[in-house]
Formats: sequence, C-alpha cells, structure tokens
Amino acid sequence: MDLHDHALRAQTLTEALPYIQKYAGKIILIKYGGNAMTDENLKKLVMGDIVLLTMIGVKVVVVHGGGPEISDMLKKTGKKSEFKNGLRVTDPETMDIVQMVLAGKVNKDLVNLVELSGGRAIGISGVDGHMIRAAQLDPDLGAVGEIEDVDVKPITDLLDMGYIPIISTVGCDKAGNLYNINADTAAARIAGKLGAESMLTMTDIEGLLRDRNDPDTLIRRMSVSDVPELVAEGVISGGMIPKIQCCVEAIRRGVRKVFIIDGRVPHSILMELLTNAGLGTMFTA
Amino acid sequence: MDLHDHALRAQTLTEALPYIQKYAGKIILIKYGGNAMTDENLKKLVMGDIVLLTMIGVKVVVVHGGGPEISDMLKKTGKKSEFKNGLRVTDPETMDIVQMVLAGKVNKDLVNLVELSGGRAIGISGVDGHMIRAAQLDPDLGAVGEIEDVDVKPITDLLDMGYIPIISTVGCDKAGNLYNINADTAAARIAGKLGAESMLTMTDIEGLLRDRNDPDTLIRRMSVSDVPELVAEGVISGGMIPKIQCCVEAIRRGVRKVFIIDGRVPHSILMELLTNAGLGTMFTA
Amino acid sequence: MDLHDHALRAQTLTEALPYIQKYAGKIILIKYGGNAMTDENLKKLVMGDIVLLTMIGVKVVVVHGGGPEISDMLKKTGKKSEFKNGLRVTDPETMDIVQMVLAGKVNKDLVNLVELSGGRAIGISGVDGHMIRAAQLDPDLGAVGEIEDVDVKPITDLLDMGYIPIISTVGCDKAGNLYNINADTAAARIAGKLGAESMLTMTDIEGLLRDRNDPDTLIRRMSVSDVPELVAEGVISGGMIPKIQCCVEAIRRGVRKVFIIDGRVPHSILMELLTNAGLGTMFTA
Amino acid sequence: MDLHDHALRAQTLTEALPYIQKYAGKIILIKYGGNAMTDENLKKLVMGDIVLLTMIGVKVVVVHGGGPEISDMLKKTGKKSEFKNGLRVTDPETMDIVQMVLAGKVNKDLVNLVELSGGRAIGISGVDGHMIRAAQLDPDLGAVGEIEDVDVKPITDLLDMGYIPIISTVGCDKAGNLYNINADTAAARIAGKLGAESMLTMTDIEGLLRDRNDPDTLIRRMSVSDVPELVAEGVISGGMIPKIQCCVEAIRRGVRKVFIIDGRVPHSILMELLTNAGLGTMFTA
Amino acid sequence: MDLHDHALRAQTLTEALPYIQKYAGKIILIKYGGNAMTDENLKKLVMGDIVLLTMIGVKVVVVHGGGPEISDMLKKTGKKSEFKNGLRVTDPETMDIVQMVLAGKVNKDLVNLVELSGGRAIGISGVDGHMIRAAQLDPDLGAVGEIEDVDVKPITDLLDMGYIPIISTVGCDKAGNLYNINADTAAARIAGKLGAESMLTMTDIEGLLRDRNDPDTLIRRMSVSDVPELVAEGVISGGMIPKIQCCVEAIRRGVRKVFIIDGRVPHSILMELLTNAGLGTMFTA
Amino acid sequence: MDLHDHALRAQTLTEALPYIQKYAGKIILIKYGGNAMTDENLKKLVMGDIVLLTMIGVKVVVVHGGGPEISDMLKKTGKKSEFKNGLRVTDPETMDIVQMVLAGKVNKDLVNLVELSGGRAIGISGVDGHMIRAAQLDPDLGAVGEIEDVDVKPITDLLDMGYIPIISTVGCDKAGNLYNINADTAAARIAGKLGAESMLTMTDIEGLLRDRNDPDTLIRRMSVSDVPELVAEGVISGGMIPKIQCCVEAIRRGVRKVFIIDGRVPHSILMELLTNAGLGTMFTA
Repeated sequence: MDLHDHALRAQTLTEALPYIQKYAGKIILIKYGGNAMTDENLKKLVMGDIVLLTMIGVKVVVVHGGGPEISDMLKKTGKKSEFKNGLRVTDPETMDIVQMVLAGKVNKDLVNLVELSGGRAIGISGVDGHMIRAAQLDPDLGAVGEIEDVDVKPITDLLDMGYIPIISTVGCDKAGNLYNINADTAAARIAGKLGAESMLTMTDIEGLLRDRNDPDTLIRRMSVSDVPELVAEGVISGGMIPKIQCCVEAIRRGVRKVFIIDGRVPHSILMELLTNAGLGTMFTA
Repeated sequence: MDLHDHALRAQTLTEALPYIQKYAGKIILIKYGGNAMTDENLKKLVMGDIVLLTMIGVKVVVVHGGGPEISDMLKKTGKKSEFKNGLRVTDPETMDIVQMVLAGKVNKDLVNLVELSGGRAIGISGVDGHMIRAAQLDPDLGAVGEIEDVDVKPITDLLDMGYIPIISTVGCDKAGNLYNINADTAAARIAGKLGAESMLTMTDIEGLLRDRNDPDTLIRRMSVSDVPELVAEGVISGGMIPKIQCCVEAIRRGVRKVFIIDGRVPHSILMELLTNAGLGTMFTA
Repeated sequence: MDLHDHALRAQTLTEALPYIQKYAGKIILIKYGGNAMTDENLKKLVMGDIVLLTMIGVKVVVVHGGGPEISDMLKKTGKKSEFKNGLRVTDPETMDIVQMVLAGKVNKDLVNLVELSGGRAIGISGVDGHMIRAAQLDPDLGAVGEIEDVDVKPITDLLDMGYIPIISTVGCDKAGNLYNINADTAAARIAGKLGAESMLTMTDIEGLLRDRNDPDTLIRRMSVSDVPELVAEGVISGGMIPKIQCCVEAIRRGVRKVFIIDGRVPHSILMELLTNAGLGTMFTA
Repeated sequence: MDLHDHALRAQTLTEALPYIQKYAGKIILIKYGGNAMTDENLKKLVMGDIVLLTMIGVKVVVVHGGGPEISDMLKKTGKKSEFKNGLRVTDPETMDIVQMVLAGKVNKDLVNLVELSGGRAIGISGVDGHMIRAAQLDPDLGAVGEIEDVDVKPITDLLDMGYIPIISTVGCDKAGNLYNINADTAAARIAGKLGAESMLTMTDIEGLLRDRNDPDTLIRRMSVSDVPELVAEGVISGGMIPKIQCCVEAIRRGVRKVFIIDGRVPHSILMELLTNAGLGTMFTA
Repeated sequence: MDLHDHALRAQTLTEALPYIQKYAGKIILIKYGGNAMTDENLKKLVMGDIVLLTMIGVKVVVVHGGGPEISDMLKKTGKKSEFKNGLRVTDPETMDIVQMVLAGKVNKDLVNLVELSGGRAIGISGVDGHMIRAAQLDPDLGAVGEIEDVDVKPITDLLDMGYIPIISTVGCDKAGNLYNINADTAAARIAGKLGAESMLTMTDIEGLLRDRNDPDTLIRRMSVSDVPELVAEGVISGGMIPKIQCCVEAIRRGVRKVFIIDGRVPHSILMELLTNAGLGTMFTA
Repeated sequence: MDLHDHALRAQTLTEALPYIQKYAGKIILIKYGGNAMTDENLKKLVMGDIVLLTMIGVKVVVVHGGGPEISDMLKKTGKKSEFKNGLRVTDPETMDIVQMVLAGKVNKDLVNLVELSGGRAIGISGVDGHMIRAAQLDPDLGAVGEIEDVDVKPITDLLDMGYIPIISTVGCDKAGNLYNINADTAAARIAGKLGAESMLTMTDIEGLLRDRNDPDTLIRRMSVSDVPELVAEGVISGGMIPKIQCCVEAIRRGVRKVFIIDGRVPHSILMELLTNAGLGTMFTA
C-alpha cells in the first residue's frame, strides 16, 4: 500500500465515521429512476449500496418510477397511449396495466435484487394501508391522480421491523378508485411526512450545472430560495423544472437535505452520503 | 323481539364469547379462491367478515389464488397457454404475466377492499422478504415451482404491526428466479409454519358430502386419518383429492383445525368459527 | 338450521363484534340488587354473564346491596329496626350486623358464584383501602353515612390484576368509624370516578315505561336532561325517583351510558350490551 | 443523651440496617391471634409495627383467627355450640355466623386499623379467588374443613400492588361449600406456598421455656428436628403441641425461619426481626 | 435486656424506620475531610456507615479533600509551597502532585476501604467525563481554579449502576488545563446539581455553638437566612465562615437539608440521619 | 477527484461498512503503551481514533501502562529503583508512587484527551470495584502482583452507560493490599473475561517479521498454535516473547482476534479494523 493510498483511506474513514454516526437511525429516501434503473449492472450496484447503508443503521426508503416498463406492456397488449399536456390519458384498462407493471413487476424485481444482495425488503404500493390518498387531477385524463394526503405509518412500521420499504406510486381515493401518481411528487411528499434526513434523486445528469456543457460548473450546494433566480436565468429549464420543484417541495415539507446525484456513476449514493467528495447538487432550506 | 329470537340471540352470544376468547390472539389463515372471489358481492362480505374477526383480536392471514384473472390477461396479450398434466407451461413471458396479475392486480384489489371495510391490510408476495423459497418442478413446465421452505417472519411482522397480510403465491429461488406456486399448497405450508389455530379453505361446495347429491350427508367433522379410506370409497375424488391433501398437510404440519367451507354462503366464516352451527367439514389430527 | 335462524345468528354476530371491540378494555359497572339477586337461578345466570363479559376483555365491577339479608339477620338476633324517613336507625350493634352481612356474607357468596362460573373475583368493602370515605348523615340515624369521596385505586388495581371486584358499600371516616352507605349512590359515585363506559342497574322492572301498565311504552333511550320533565309528568315517581337520580348522577360524573335493565330476564346484561335489541332504558348526557 | 444511650442507639441501628436490607422485598407472614388481638392498645401497636415494616420494603401478610368473637356472636343469636374432640360442630347456621364474623367483622376491623396507621390493606377470605381449597374433615363436625390446596396468587397479586393482605381462614370446595379452617394450619400452609422468609406466630407466652415457671429458661433458637424429643420430655405439651406442629409444618414447606413471640410485649415484632435481642423462640430447618 | 434498653431500642427502631423510608432512593452527599479522614479507625467506621446507608437504599456520594497528604508529598519531592491570601500558588509541577495525590492516592484509598466494608465504590475526579468545568481564579495563583459548571451525569450514572461515587475535586477547562478546586465549594455545587436530599459536612467541631466553650449551646437547627446575623455577632467567625458559606450555597442551589456534624464521634452519620438525637447543626432554607 | 481516488474511496467504504456492522456493539480492548503513548501527537490521534470507533457503536476499553512516567517520578522523589530478574522491587513508598502516577496522572491525562476529542471517558484502576484481584508474586519483590481474578462488572457497567473505560493496572488482595500489575497480562485477562471481539496491542514494531530487517516479511495472520515453532526458530525472541504470550493467553481465554499493530503509524487502529489493508499481525485460535 503506497503512502498516498494509506492517507486517502485513512481520510475516507475518518470522514465517513462521523457521517455514519450522524445518519445512523435516520431516514433517507431514495427516489429511484432513469438509467440507474434500466442498466441491470447499475441496478445491482444501487441495491447493493442501499443494503450497505442499512448495515450501518440507516433507514432507507425507496420510491421508484417505471414509465418505460409501462409503455412496453401497453405495447404488448396492443393498447395505444394518448397524451395530453405530456400526461398519459389513463383509461381503466391502462390503469390496470399501470398497477400491474408498477406494483407487480418493477416493485417485486427491486425487492428481489435487495434480497439477493443480503438485505430485507418488502414492496408496497400506495393502496397498501391506503397509504397514498389521491384525487382525480382532470376528468379528461382518467386515472391520473394528485396526492391529497400521505399516511406513512405502513412505511415507518416496515422500517421499525427492519425492512427496506420499496414503494410504487399507485394511489387511491376514499371510494377505492385507483390513480397513477407521479413518482417524483410522491417521493417529495413521503420524504416530508417521514421527516427524512435526506432525499436523494437519482438522475442521468451530473447535478445542476451553471453551464450544461461544462461539468466543472457543477453547483455543489444551494439554498432552495435561489431556485427562482436560476429558473429565470435559464440554468434550470425544461424537464429539470418539475424535478427541481419536487426538491423544493421536499425541503419545504421538512426534509433536511435533498440531493440530485448522477445515477450513472457507480456507488454515487455512498460517495455522496459518506465522503466530503460530494458528487451532485445539494439543496438546503 | 319474540321469545324464540331472544333465546336464539342469547344462545348465539353465550356460544360465541368463549370462541372469541379462544381465538383472540390466535392466527387463522383463510385460503381464498373460487366463486367467493369472483362474485363482487361475496368478495365484499368476505373481506368484511375478516375485518370483523380482526376487531376481536383474531390474527387473520389471507392467501389468495387467481387462475381466471391470469387466463384473462394472457388472452389480452395474445399469449396461448399450453398445459401438461393439468399444469400450465410457464415460459418467462407467461411468468411475467402471472407475477403482475397476482402481485399487482388481484392482491392489491383485495387489499383495497379490506381497507374500504375499515381494516388495515398490506399485500405481499413470496418474493417480499424472499418468503417463499421455491425450486423448479419440471424443466418442461418452465417457471412452475414447488415450495422448498417458507420464512413466515414477514407475515408475523405484519401481524404484530396490526396488518392483515394478503399473500400472493409467487416464489423464488436463491438465484432470484421467480416461480408460480399452487395457492392451496402454499396456504397449507404457511399455516403450518405459522402454527395457525385454524385454516379455512373457501370453496364452491357445502363441504365433504358422503353422497354428493344429498346435502344432508355432510360430514361435519373428521380425522385426517380417515382420508385414505374416503378416497378409496370414492367419497373424495377428482379435483377434491389435491384440495383435501392440502388439508391433511396443514394438519400434519401443526395446524389445529382445518375447515372446508362453502364460500357461496354469506358470512360462512363467522358462522363456522363463532357458532356451534358449523357449516362445512372440519378436519383434525 | 333454517334460513331465518342463520340470518339471525349472522346478524347477532356482525352486530356483536363491533360492540365487543368497543367494550374490550372498558370498565362496566353493574349495580346488582333486587329479584335478580334473590332468585338463586338468576343469580347464577348473572354471574355467568359477567364471567362471559370478562372473557372478551370487559372489565366488570359489581356493586351489590343486601337489605333483605340484613333484615333477616337482625331478626335472628332479636334486634328490632326503627326507621326515620325511610332510613334505618343504625345503632352500633346494628352497624355490626350490617357490616357482617354485607362484607362477610352477601359479598363472599357472590364471589363464590363467580369463581364457580370460572371467573376470578375478589370481594372488598369500602373499608378496604379506605376506599369509601363517608360522614354521618344525621346524628339521629346513627351510622347511616353519606359519601364524601371515593378512592377507586383498590378497584383499578384489582382490575389490572385480572379480578372482578365485588364491592359491598360499607364506608368509614378518617377516625375509622364505619357507616352504612346506600348502594345505588355508591355505584354512581364509583362508576363516575372509574370513568366507566357504562353502568347497568339491575331492577325488577322492564325499564322506564311511559305508561307503567303498558310494556310497549318502554322509553329505550333518553337524555338525563329530560328527567325533570318526566318527574313532573309523574312518569318517574315514588321509589323510582332516587334510582333515576343515581343514573343522572353517574352521567354527570362522566359515565358514558347508564342502563336500567330488567334483572328478571335471563341474559339481560348480554342482550343489552351486545345486541341492537336493547331491553331496558338507556340514559346519556 | 448519655454515653450508654448513644452506644445502644448506634448498636441498634448498625444491627438493624443489615436486617432491613435482608428483609426488604421478602415476605413475612404474621399469624395474629390471642391477647395481642383482644387488647385494643396492643392491636393498634401491632398494626402500627406492621405498617412500619412495609415502609422498609417488607411484604407483610397477616392471617388472623377469631374464636372469641365467633362465640360472642353465636351467643347473641341464641345458638348453642356443641363440641366434639375440641372442635366445634359447625352446622350451616353456625357456618354463616363464622363466615360473617371472620370475613365481615374481625377482618375489616384489622383492615381499618392498618389504614388508620397509614398503611394500605385489603382484607380477603379463602373464598376470594377460591384461594383456600378445602374438604370436609368429618361429616359429624359439619363445616369443619381441612386444607387440600392453597392458591396464593391473590395474595402475591395484592402484595405486588402494594397492599397488606389480611386473611380470614374460611375455605371452600369445588362445589362452593364453605368450611371453617384452623388459622394456625392455614398460616403454615400459606407461608410455605408463599416461600415466606419468616412466619411469626403471636401468642400469650414468652416463647418455648424449658421450665415454664422460669422465663430465664427460654429456648432462643432450635431446629425443628428437636421437636419430637421436647414433646417426649414434656417441654412441649398440651395446647402447645398443635401450635408447634404448625411451626414444623411451615419449615417443612419451605419457610426459612419461624418464630413464636410474645404478643403481650409492645413492639415484639420489631424487636424480634430487627435486633439481636430476639425475644421469643426461633425454629429453623 | 432491661426495660430501659428495650424501650430505647424500640424507640430507636420506630424512629428510624420512617427516616429510612424517607431517605430510601434519595441522594445524600458526604463532604469528607478533617480528623475523621486522618484517624484510620474513624475512617473505617465512616466508610462502614456509608455502606450501611447504601444497604437501605440511600444513594451516597462522597466528596473528599486531601490538603495534608498533598503537603506531605510536596515535601517528599523537595518542592516548597508558596501561599497568597491563604491559597497555595500552584505551578505545573505542584498541580501534577495535587492531581496524583488526590485522584491517585487519597481517592483510591477511600475506594479500597468501602470495598473492604462490603460496599461497591468507583473513584473519579472532575476530569472524568469532564465533570467539573473550571476556570483559572487568578493568574498569580497558577492552577487554582473556580468552578464554572458541574455535569453530574457521571455521578448519577454510577449511582444508577449501584456504585458509591468517591470524588476528588480536580477540575479542567475546555482546553484541557487542570485546576485544583476547593472541596467544600465543589461539594456544595455537586449536591445542588444532584438535587441531593441532604449534604453532611464532617468537621472537627460539635457543630455551631453560640458559645464555643460550652457544648450545651449547640444550635441544633437554623435557617440559612440567620447566617448573616450570626456572622455579625461573631458566633460564626474565622475558618468557619467559608465552611458555612458553602452550606448556604448548597441550600440556595436546592439541597433540602445541610448538616455540620462532628466527624470525631463514632457513627455520627447514622445518629444524625436516622434518629431524633441529632448531633450537629442542621441548616434549612 | 481522479478516477483512482474515486475507486479507492468507494472500495474503502464498501469494505468498511460490513466491518462496521460486524464491530458495532462489540467490545474491542486496546492495550496502549510504547511510543504511541509518549509522542503527544500520536497520543491525540490514537484517542481521536478511539472516539471515532465509539461513534459507530464499538465498545472500546483502554488498558494502559506507564513505566517511563513511574521512573520519572521516582527520580524526582530521590527514590532509587532496584531490579530483580527485570522486575522492579516495589517497597511501600514505591508502590505509593506507582499508584499515584498510574491512577492519578497517566490515567487522568488519557481521560482528558478522550474528552477533548469529543468522547466520554471514565478512568478507573483495579482497586475501583476491587476489579483486579491480585496476590503477591514474590516476597522479595514487594508489591509486585500477579492476577488471581478479574471482575469486569465495573467495566461493562461503564460501557453500558456509554463511557470509554480507561484502566490503570493497580490490583489489590482481599485484605486491601495494593499491587503493581503488568499491563500486558492484565489486558489479556480483561479482554478474555469481557469476551472481547478483538484485542489490539500497540507497539513500536511493524508486527511480527520473519526477518526483522525486512518489513516485507511481515506475518499478516497466524494461529496461536504456531507460536512455539516461531519461538524455537528465533523469529519470536527477547522482549517479544512475553508480549506474544499475552496474545496467546487472550486467545485462549476467548478473545476472537488479537492484533499487534504499529503504534507509530497514524490511524493504525482504523486501518487495521476497518480495511482489508491490515497493517500488523493478527492472531487467531
């Protein structure tokens, strides 16, 4: 072992231990989607990192999306998707597919991977324990829902019992009607209600860049109060706007720190949480 | 209130209270399938009865099937089913459909109904917590599995937290391959491992009849040691044989009492468990 | 089992289970006296019903009277009773007899019957734990007492330990002087202090009848605020007035519901508490 | 304070503290009867000493007799007592009187005195919790009973709740028949079943004297194995024989130390238990 | 045993038991110093009395001085002591000696004696758990410190674990510099922070005497509000003034009772705490 | 951050987390001495590493030596040391110095450093709780002791309360005589009795080298059964023999793993325990 390596390892450890102490017993919500979810190798690494975090006492909650898998399945059943304002018109047959793909397929596959990495997971949807209470967003869109309230008791119960809750974002109303819920929004609401220490959103970008062509312009840390200005300046634009809005929402609802990290980098979760070498962008109040 | 009614109510109560005391805190597994599951009205009544049982401290576990719904979905995707020895040849695409229909659709719909009746339910599959450990039954049948072991910790954890666990019988092996598992067999194994007080199998018959054309020949109570003789006599025959074998298996694995009850009769669960007017057939050791 | 019976039983059960859930862990005080206490058969049925209630988690407290037995014993010792304004003049010798009959005889006989029905009972008086603190009502009446305060700790301790407390209403003052206390008054005070869910007063009438000659005029439910009007109308009169005053007092001190039920009807306690077929009159705030 | 007094006080304290530590949390049963129970002043002192003992964590149980009071009451009702072999023939009417006097009068008066001294007491009989299970000794004697078994759960429950249990020795059989039980025998059986550290029998003598006319011949400590010899020598004779037999029985059933102390000496309980100046006779295994 | 002795012992016990009840579970701090600490025989008796107190549930904390031993050791190392205003100028070398003698020698010798008497002790200094937070009093005096704050958690932790904490009064500041702290002041501050029931200061005088030549003028009990007057009158003077100021300080900080007792009298602690024959002077608010 | 560094950090973390999980809640004893204790900078780093370990739930116990400091102090008091067979003849005056230096100076200085690093420490000696029971080794050597028994209750009590116990190895016998105990031997005995997961001995060498001039011949891992052969070969020789004997003793008494690590290397404790880059020699059974 050369001297540089020894020093770097010692530094990594002395850095990590206080973080570990700080996070032990705390809740961290990981919003999981994008490439990190479609590349099978990254998927295994991510689930492995999550299991490592639970080993040191972190309470990890995973909220996942699944748009591409839904589209695949709809294609197989010969169902054509119609979109309005970027939202899929969700008739009853489509909702059945959404429910089956998210709660029956994507969810259980993630549970399976966590278990294969040595962790213990239970996958639930917003229907279980009527956890995600939703309402119809717009009659023209069918079963597209917006969240009215979140009851996190089923999640905290699973955490207390030592499980990693893996959550698919199907919601329902008092009459039992089911709705398709946007996963970023659900993640922010759940993290807030859980009083999570941190929420990590895994995406396909390095983080927030002042100049999107120059990785060296990564904004490592910012207050959510600076968001409007960055939107005005065009630094935050297009598809990033709703994603960042969810980060703002999470902070507003009580999450201490929200991170956008690059899901394409191996072990990005560990590097972000346990070293000073933060990879992405951190939002605070 | 006339005198007969008064006496009958008093009798019902004085009968029920000791049963209630006896069942309070005990585990009862309900194997749910058949007409009681396809008739929407009966489905609501059954879920309602289950919620009533939990109100008096019974720990109810539900294991459900879903054959007809799987066939429907396969038809929608244009997939043709092939059968060998009465078992569906389950190629990877079919297994995906099985998983999605059972864990994503049937399971969540039952959870939804329990919640609408005022109960608290969480739906899980044999993949969650790698609860049902299975192996391939026959390479020619693809993903048809047989149970190697059952880890009931996720179920008892959910019971301890006050939830009604609703279980779909998808299993997996150590490598993470998924299998379709027969629900009657899974119910017997789970009930045994839970040390359940009773298992109730809801079917479309009155119970075991000596003469299947004469409801008055209902066998109200029998020992599992009498099963071989009844098979020999032809009283148990055809599709009843594997069902009864599961009852025998459950008793052999430690369940105190197993009932075959008529799922078509409203409130048959309550009548069977809490009155002397048992409706179906009870098996004991 | 005919269809009517099946439906009635199912109804009795679906009605009873939520009541059972509601009463489980709650305190119900039964003021026991009158014919239900002198007819040996009814006495056994009542004690049996009380034991059944405890089986489903109800915490039952019994407060009993004993006027006729006291008169019997006084007669045996050749002691003549003198009355003023309907109250027995209680000289020291008489008080000794009262104490012995209530705490030594009636109380222990009830304890004995509960134990014979499979319950667990401990009989105490207001002297035990100096539970009923009393004062002399009138020097001319001797040891006739009125309640100053009730310390229900001995009762709740016995309930916590799983016993049915059977209470005889002998009270005492700070100097240790003993007093004979009216059992209806004591029951109301104790029920109030216990925060009992319900108090049931067992009497020899059907309940409160608008026309005392017509059982069909039974008042099933009324607010205590309507009592003065009914007294004015003469519906409540004579010996019923103090009894009803105790019901009012119990409600005023925090008991949720007070019932006057017909102790002559078998299982009237169960019918009143666990079915919709209420037999007597219920008072609420 | 003179020097002798200072030294004696210091000695009393340094002696007492280890005893106090030794007895704290231990059970001591006091068999209470004789003059110490009929002299009102001594009665108050004894109850006061018992309360002091509970202050330092001793768990005191009192078993009392009441022969003279029973005789008084029988006389009042004009009932004549017949004796066979020194035992009172107990017909149903007599048994009623026994039950009333012991459980209703003597018992409650002791409870009253403990409460007046600042302690907390609950008085129970062998009927409560069906604690003393008895059988008829001899049909000719009526309701004279012998103990079959003792269930001390009601006593330990009361101790756990912080009460001093005061026990009258009325027993009952499975059919609910009541019996009069000898208090010395009951004390020995109860002390044994409780695993009491000590049993103190309060009598009207200084203890066991070698020469009953010479107090200086007090036997301070002896093994129960020496009893037969002392009976043979006539040192133990007459009414002392059954009393000493109960001491032997208590030791045989597991009580660590049994004392016969002089109930006529003020504070004899404290002096016996907490000083080296033991007053009476101590029996050990 | 003669009658006077019997009565005196009975009185001692009936007096002591309520005190014992009162002190059980309470904290008593003993400031230990003077002759009672230099006479080896008295030292053993004091440690023995402390162990006796713990036997009856008193939580004893000992704070000790050690001036003479420090002077001895300084002499051995040839170090000369310089004094300013009666305070020893404490250079680094002297501080080393102070630390070693108090925490390494005097402290461990007391621990040793408690253990030899059958108690369990752990000796700590103000450095352990950085319990005594101090600051330099005067640069000219070197390491003489005054207390800024006391963190009694280490003491209460040791008490909770059943140890007698023996404390030497070395303090430290945030930078880790050590200071010599006056033991009387430390005792008062610690007793106050502990919410001690009592503080006993063991000295070489009978207590506070109105006329210091007449032991009969002992002031048995006084309010701290009377101290200024007694100082003005000269009753409190010289070296007694700072000692009494510490008593006042302890009362002001919440100690219920403070005693100055004569450490030269054997068992003075027991006599003061457990009898009415108080030996010294008691201060109250 | 370059790619090599990113990979090395990720590797360090994924390596460390399972170790952290493995050590969390386990006891690790650190035998602290040699250069790592005399170099002030290393001393701070070591205490810092110990505090970091406690942050992740490791229960650290420190046993320290102090030979050089004892020699210094003896010199100051003009006391000459005599040695027999390499052991210091310890007369009473010398023993006083040993006790004061170890328990009063070295011990409290280490406690001080732990507290300054943010940890919580309490320093005790073998006299506290009479933890190290010793006997005289040889009358000619005076107060040199050998261990008879170790009572680790005070250590586990301090660990349970969240403190780092810092232990100086002064022992005592039943009569209260004090003895100087070899710190390596004491560490091995204490680690064994604690059932420690690991013992780390900090020395001034790289570990066990096959060729002591070639660091590349470091023996990374060996069984204690190979020790005799290595002694025979001369690989273990001179002052290393007793040190290694203590490692063998610790393993024999139940410690899982014993390490000899180089106290001169910064963070050697963390590198040894939490990475695969073990620095010293590990002994196992």
